[in-house]
Amino acid sequence: MKVNVVRDVLQRNTQIAEENQKIFRDYNIFVFNVMSSPGAGKTTFLVQTIERIKERFRVGVIEGDVASQIDAERIKATGVPVIQVNTGGACHLDASMVRKALSHLPLSELEVVIIENVGNLVCPAEWKLGEDLKVSLLSVPEGDDKPMKYPLMFTESDVLIINKIDLLPHFNFNMDQVEKVVKGFNPVIDIFKLSCTTLEGFDAWLKFLIPKIEEVRK
Amino acid sequence: MKVNVVRDVLQRNTQIAEENQKIFRDYNIFVFNVMSSPGAGKTTFLVQTIERIKERFRVGVIEGDVASQIDAERIKATGVPVIQVNTGGACHLDASMVRKALSHLPLSELEVVIIENVGNLVCPAEWKLGEDLKVSLLSVPEGDDKPMKYPLMFTESDVLIINKIDLLPHFNFNMDQVEKVVKGFNPVIDIFKLSCTTLEGFDAWLKFLIPKIEEVRK
Repeated sequence: MKVNVVRDVLQRNTQIAEENQKIFRDYNIFVFNVMSSPGAGKTTFLVQTIERIKERFRVGVIEGDVASQIDAERIKATGVPVIQVNTGGACHLDASMVRKALSHLPLSELEVVIIENVGNLVCPAEWKLGEDLKVSLLSVPEGDDKPMKYPLMFTESDVLIINKIDLLPHFNFNMDQVEKVVKGFNPVIDIFKLSCTTLEGFDAWLKFLIPKIEEVRK
Repeated sequence: MKVNVVRDVLQRNTQIAEENQKIFRDYNIFVFNVMSSPGAGKTTFLVQTIERIKERFRVGVIEGDVASQIDAERIKATGVPVIQVNTGGACHLDASMVRKALSHLPLSELEVVIIENVGNLVCPAEWKLGEDLKVSLLSVPEGDDKPMKYPLMFTESDVLIINKIDLLPHFNFNMDQVEKVVKGFNPVIDIFKLSCTTLEGFDAWLKFLIPKIEEVRK
């Protein structure tokens, strides 16, 4: 009984996500959804990404958080439009929350929408939002065992950002093992290792992202 | 409709949690439930705690994870009995999972049961398991904004462990602000700042914990 309710809710979500995807296609907007544990560095990663693409593309952001406006304020400082969605307890964004947020973004003026999900390595993985790309972050301080312990996130993602590589000297983090485990679940995932502080490795991520955006704009 | 289903499930959970609490009281077992983001250091914190109390008290552990046996293996190395509960996708333990695990622990031989929840700063907060004490961990690398963004966990917890304080020189972490925000939600919470690597601050946690266990044993 409980399982059926959950399944129905997920099916309804997928339907709304498909409608969202259609809206994004109508406007030729490329959309990516960023997911990770709390504190893996999603907002800093987005601020650094936005600073490097905003001269080229018009970007809007949907910020998901259980509570507070902290992340929206940080994004706002980059000068791009941002909508804060407070889930009020829910542990992930769903497609209808994204739909509501869309009505507050100037879609006809945008080329990229970035969705920052609630910090959670479990729940967001199975909720489609209508995005073109699912990007998950794993930060070095979280530990190299996380893909083994939270496999769905790494199986569902199109891209894995291994963040905070500047901290590798302070942690016992086996990079080869992480890559091997993740590729085991998901052989086609693209993995980028970078630091949003030193910007080491950041260019490779931009070189991957920019053609994806341009493809949708064609 | 969805809200009612969730509410019913939570009410049923609370009922099972109360039955669990009665079982623990019958055996004079003190129980604490440890919650945090993935990678905040729950397992290391438990290993260090167990090593320091296991000569004095007989300890058993219930390890909750979405997948894998990694944490159970680490706990097993301390020599105490441990049961791994794999939730198979669910983002938190519930009281009935704990009940099932109890049948695999030698309750009549135990004085302390420690429950390590799934790594998640959102969902576990509202699921009672029958514990005497809810302990949450926040690690320095996660950032000082987490209590503002995930208030329920910090409101529901009896104890907050601020972990990895040895890493404070590498992060911009405002300890005073964290304490102020958390005490704002939850004026009676006990806060301990410690490192499970250097063991700085660890004694204060043990001095708090041991009398709580002894109280239940009386």
